[in-house]
Amino acid sequence: MAHLSDIEIAQQAELAPVTQIAEDLGIDSTLVDSYGRYKAKIDLAAIDETKIESNKLVLVTAMSPTPAGEGKTTTTVGLADALRQLGKNVSMALREPSLGPVFGLKGGACGGGYAQVVPMEDINLHFTGDFHAISAANNLLAAMLDNHIYQGNELGINPKRVVIKRCVDMNDRQLRHVVDGLGSPVDGVSREDGFEITVASEVMAIFCLATSIPDLKEKLGNMIVAYTYDQQPVTARDLGAVGAMTALLKEAIKPNLVQSLEHTPAIVHGGPFANIAHGCNSILATKLSRSLSEYTVTEAGFGADLGAEKFLDIMCRITGTRPNCSVVVGTVRALKMHGGVAKTDLDQENVDAVKAGLPNLLKHVENMVEVYQLPTVVALNLFPTDTEAEIALVIEECARRGVQCVRSEVWARGGAGGVDLAREVIRLCESPAEVSFAYQDDDSVEEKINQLVQRVYGGSAVEIAPKAQRVIAMIEKMGLSHLPICMAKTQYSFSDDPRLLGSPRDFTLHVKNVKVNAGAGFIVVYTGDILTMPGLPRVPAAARIDVDERGTISGLF
Amino acid sequence: MAHLSDIEIAQQAELAPVTQIAEDLGIDSTLVDSYGRYKAKIDLAAIDETKIESNKLVLVTAMSPTPAGEGKTTTTVGLADALRQLGKNVSMALREPSLGPVFGLKGGACGGGYAQVVPMEDINLHFTGDFHAISAANNLLAAMLDNHIYQGNELGINPKRVVIKRCVDMNDRQLRHVVDGLGSPVDGVSREDGFEITVASEVMAIFCLATSIPDLKEKLGNMIVAYTYDQQPVTARDLGAVGAMTALLKEAIKPNLVQSLEHTPAIVHGGPFANIAHGCNSILATKLSRSLSEYTVTEAGFGADLGAEKFLDIMCRITGTRPNCSVVVGTVRALKMHGGVAKTDLDQENVDAVKAGLPNLLKHVENMVEVYQLPTVVALNLFPTDTEAEIALVIEECARRGVQCVRSEVWARGGAGGVDLAREVIRLCESPAEVSFAYQDDDSVEEKINQLVQRVYGGSAVEIAPKAQRVIAMIEKMGLSHLPICMAKTQYSFSDDPRLLGSPRDFTLHVKNVKVNAGAGFIVVYTGDILTMPGLPRVPAAARIDVDERGTISGLF
Repeated sequence: MAHLSDIEIAQQAELAPVTQIAEDLGIDSTLVDSYGRYKAKIDLAAIDETKIESNKLVLVTAMSPTPAGEGKTTTTVGLADALRQLGKNVSMALREPSLGPVFGLKGGACGGGYAQVVPMEDINLHFTGDFHAISAANNLLAAMLDNHIYQGNELGINPKRVVIKRCVDMNDRQLRHVVDGLGSPVDGVSREDGFEITVASEVMAIFCLATSIPDLKEKLGNMIVAYTYDQQPVTARDLGAVGAMTALLKEAIKPNLVQSLEHTPAIVHGGPFANIAHGCNSILATKLSRSLSEYTVTEAGFGADLGAEKFLDIMCRITGTRPNCSVVVGTVRALKMHGGVAKTDLDQENVDAVKAGLPNLLKHVENMVEVYQLPTVVALNLFPTDTEAEIALVIEECARRGVQCVRSEVWARGGAGGVDLAREVIRLCESPAEVSFAYQDDDSVEEKINQLVQRVYGGSAVEIAPKAQRVIAMIEKMGLSHLPICMAKTQYSFSDDPRLLGSPRDFTLHVKNVKVNAGAGFIVVYTGDILTMPGLPRVPAAARIDVDERGTISGLF
Repeated sequence: MAHLSDIEIAQQAELAPVTQIAEDLGIDSTLVDSYGRYKAKIDLAAIDETKIESNKLVLVTAMSPTPAGEGKTTTTVGLADALRQLGKNVSMALREPSLGPVFGLKGGACGGGYAQVVPMEDINLHFTGDFHAISAANNLLAAMLDNHIYQGNELGINPKRVVIKRCVDMNDRQLRHVVDGLGSPVDGVSREDGFEITVASEVMAIFCLATSIPDLKEKLGNMIVAYTYDQQPVTARDLGAVGAMTALLKEAIKPNLVQSLEHTPAIVHGGPFANIAHGCNSILATKLSRSLSEYTVTEAGFGADLGAEKFLDIMCRITGTRPNCSVVVGTVRALKMHGGVAKTDLDQENVDAVKAGLPNLLKHVENMVEVYQLPTVVALNLFPTDTEAEIALVIEECARRGVQCVRSEVWARGGAGGVDLAREVIRLCESPAEVSFAYQDDDSVEEKINQLVQRVYGGSAVEIAPKAQRVIAMIEKMGLSHLPICMAKTQYSFSDDPRLLGSPRDFTLHVKNVKVNAGAGFIVVYTGDILTMPGLPRVPAAARIDVDERGTISGLF
C-alpha cells in the first residue's frame, strides 16, 4: 500500500451524514443545526445532567512533547473507535484547532493516519466559526474599552493599566508589542498595547468553562479589563459590553458534532492552548458527550504537567467534573529524544536512550497516579522503527510502577489497533476513583505555585519577580486568591526552560508576571520566556497549502 | 397595531426551510450546504452562464444618505417581494452586513419593517463566516509579509513601503495608526502600520470580483503588498501566500441563500462599503441570482455617486455585467435635510425645504439617465409624516425630467406596498438599455478622476497632493493606469466635504493619496478626510444589545 498523507486518507473517507450521527446518538432532530453535510451544532437542550454521573470519562494526556510527535489526538480518536468496536456506546470530546499552528509549524489537529476526525480540512479551517466569534467578542470589548477612554473616560480608567489585549487567531509576532491610538486627536488615545492569539484569551477560557448562556454572561461580566487611576478593577460589565459579546457567542457556544473515519461521534468545541491557557475543550462539549454516551474519551493539551494538570486543577475543580481514568500517551521516539537523541537519529535502535528518557514518561504517570489518584494506563503509540527491545523496556518499567503499558497501533489500523488499550481503559473505569487535586483552594497564590512546582513538576523552588509579587498582593486584596492557578509554561519541559528534557529536579521556576482572569475564574502565572502570541517559522506551513480548481485542498497536515 | 421593531417583526416571522427556497429556485440539492435551517451556501456549479444574459438585472441606488435614513435595502427587498407578488420569478442579490455598523452607529443591514431579509440576527452577526474568512486571509498575508522581513527579507522589502494593512471587522479607531514589531529582537521588525475595517480591504474587493477559484487565486496573487528598496512591487504570489489564502476562502466564496419575510430568495454575499471601497455584493451572487431568476434586484451602497458609480464603472466594467434599469430611492425626510432642516424638525411639513433639497435627488437621477444611460425610476420611500404636498412636489419635479417617481410603502406593507414600483421596473426592463461609463479605460488616472468629478459629482476641479502624484506616476510606470478608479469619499456629499449637502457646484475635490489594488483591478483614490477604519460613537449600538437565557437577542436594529 502506498503511504497516504493524513489529508489524503481524510479526503478518501466515506462520511456518514452528520444528521445520521446525531440520530444514532439519540439527539432530537430539532436540536441539530447542520453546517454543511458533515458538521452540526447541537443545542444546549440536548445536555441531560441526570445522565452524566453514571457515564464514564476517560482523560487522554501525554508525556512532554518533542519534535518527534506523540500522537495524543490520534490515540484519543483511535481509543474511541476501539471502544466502539468493542460494542460500547462512546463519543469523544476534543478541542478545535487554532489557525495559528495550522499555518505555522505544527499543522492541523484532527489526529492522524486511520485515527482522524473528519472533515479534517473544515475542522482545521474556520470549522463552524467559533474561534472567529471569540475573537470578535474579545475585540469588541477592547474597542469599547478604548472608545470609553477616548470619549471622556467617565470610569477613570488608567490607560497604563489596561489588562486585556486584542486577539487574532494567527501566529503573528509583529503584533506582540504595539503602540496604538497614534495619529491625530480623533484617532484614539496613544498607549502601549499588544495582541495575543485567540486561544490564549480569557474569552476563550470563559467560553470553555461556561455552562449556560446566563453563566456565560456572568463570567464575561466579571472579566477585569483594566484598573482605574485609584487601582479599582473595571469589568466588561462596567463597559456595558456583556450583551453584545454574548450576542456574538450565542451560536458559537453550542458544541459541534463531527465524526471519526469510523463514524464514532466527536464533539469538537473550544480550544485554548495548554501551555499559555487552560487547555481543555469546552465543558459543554464534555457534558453533551457524557449525556449521550456511556463512555466519553477526552484529551488535554500538551504534556500531563500542563493539559492534565489544568484539566484537573482548574476545569474539574470549577465544574465538578471528574474523570474515571487517565491514559498517558508516549512513543519510543519521544523517549529517545528525552534521552538525548537528535531527531535525525531516531530511526536507529537505542535502548539506552529510551531508558534515559523514561523518567519523563514515568514522572507524568506518577503524577496521575499519586498526585491526582487516577487509575492510569500508558498507551505506547507505535512507529514502524520501534524495536521489540525498546518496547519491552517501556512496558517493563511501567509494570514495575504498577501501571500497564499497552501497544497502540491506531495510526496504522484505526480502532482495531486500539482494542487492547480500550480493554484496559474499560477495566480501569470499573474501579472507583476519588480524584485529588495538587493544591487546595485556600492555599495562598504562592503556595499553589509551590505545590505545582514541587509535587507536579519536580522542581524545588519558585522565584517570583517583584512585578508579579505586586499583582499577587492586589489579588489577595481583592479577595480572589482562592482561585486556581493557570500556569503559562513551556510544554517541552517540566521546568520553565524548554532545554531541560527528561525529568529535571532541583530547578527553580521563574514567575515573571501574574494576571487574574476573574471571569474565567483562575489566576494566570507567566513563567520563563513563554509568549501568548506565537510567530511563524522561516517556512510557514501556509506556504505548502494549495487549492485546486475544484476547491480541493492539498498540503494541509 | 402596536409598533414593532425590526427585530421583533423578524423574530415573529415564519421562515420556510432554506432547502425549500433552494428547491423552488431549481437548485440541485447536492449543491446546497445548509448552515442551520435558514441559511445555506450554494455551490458555484449552480451558476449557469447561458441563462444570465436573457434575465433582467435591476440596480437599486439612492440619493445621498442623511441621518434621516433612505431605506435603500428596505426598498430593494420590498421591490423583489412586489415582483414576486406580480408573478415574476425573482431573487435578490445583496451585500452582507459588517459588524462595524452593527455595533457602531448604523445598526444592521437587512432592510426594515415588513421588507426584511431573515434570519436578521444571524445575517447581521457572523452569518456564514465570510467576513471572518476574509479577515483571516488578509491577516495571514500580513503575517507572512512581516515574517518574511523578520526572517531575513530575501525579497528586499522596504518596511517603509508596506502597502497592505491588517484588518478587523470592527469599528476600532484605536487601531488606525500603530507602531508594531516593538519589543525585543525576536518580536518582529518595528514599523509604522495600521488596521482597516475588513470591508475596506483589497481581499474583500477581490472576493466580490472573482468569478471562480482559479480567478480568485489569480487576483490574490496579483495583490501588491509592498515595494522593495528598489521600488519594485512585491505581490502575495511572491510571498507564497496564495494557496493558504485560497484555502481560507474556498467555502466563503460560495454565495449564501436566505429569504425575505415573504420567502423571496435572497442571495447575500460579500459586502465592501461604498464610501471606502467598491460597494457591490459579489459578482458570484449576482451571477447565481441571474442564473436562477428572470428578475434579479440588487443594490449598491450609499448614494448613486458612490455605490452605483462603482457598480457601473468598476464592477460592470470588469465583469461585463450590465443592469437593465436603475431605481433611485429617496425620502421626503432626507430631501428636507438636504434642504437645510435639522433632524429634530423633520416631522413638520416643509415644502420649501423639500424643494431646496431636491437638487440632490435630481442630480443622482440625471447621472443615472444621462451619464450611464440607464432607464430609471425614483422610489419615494414613504414615512407617515410625509404630506401630500411634499410628495406631489417630488413626483412633479421628477416627471419634468421624464422620470417617473413612484410611492413605495414596502416598510409598512411589504411587497404589497411596492407593486406600483415593480410595475414601472418591469416596464423599464422591457426597453433596451445600452449602458455607458463615466470615463474610458485609456483615460489617464488624473483624467478619470476629473471625469468623475465633473460629470458625476458636479464639481469643477481636482487637487492632487504631491504624495498622490508620485503614486500615480508609479502606477503609470507599472503600466496599470488603464484600471478603473475606486473613490474613497464621504457618502454625505457629492463633494469631499460632508457638510456640502444638496447638489454643490464648482467645488474642488482633494486627492490625498492613491493606492493601486492590482489584485482587485482598480486604483483607490483617497479624498478629503475619509477613513478606512471607523470609530465607535459615544454610546455604541453594542451597548443596547442583549441576549436572554433562551438565546434570544434584543436591541439589534
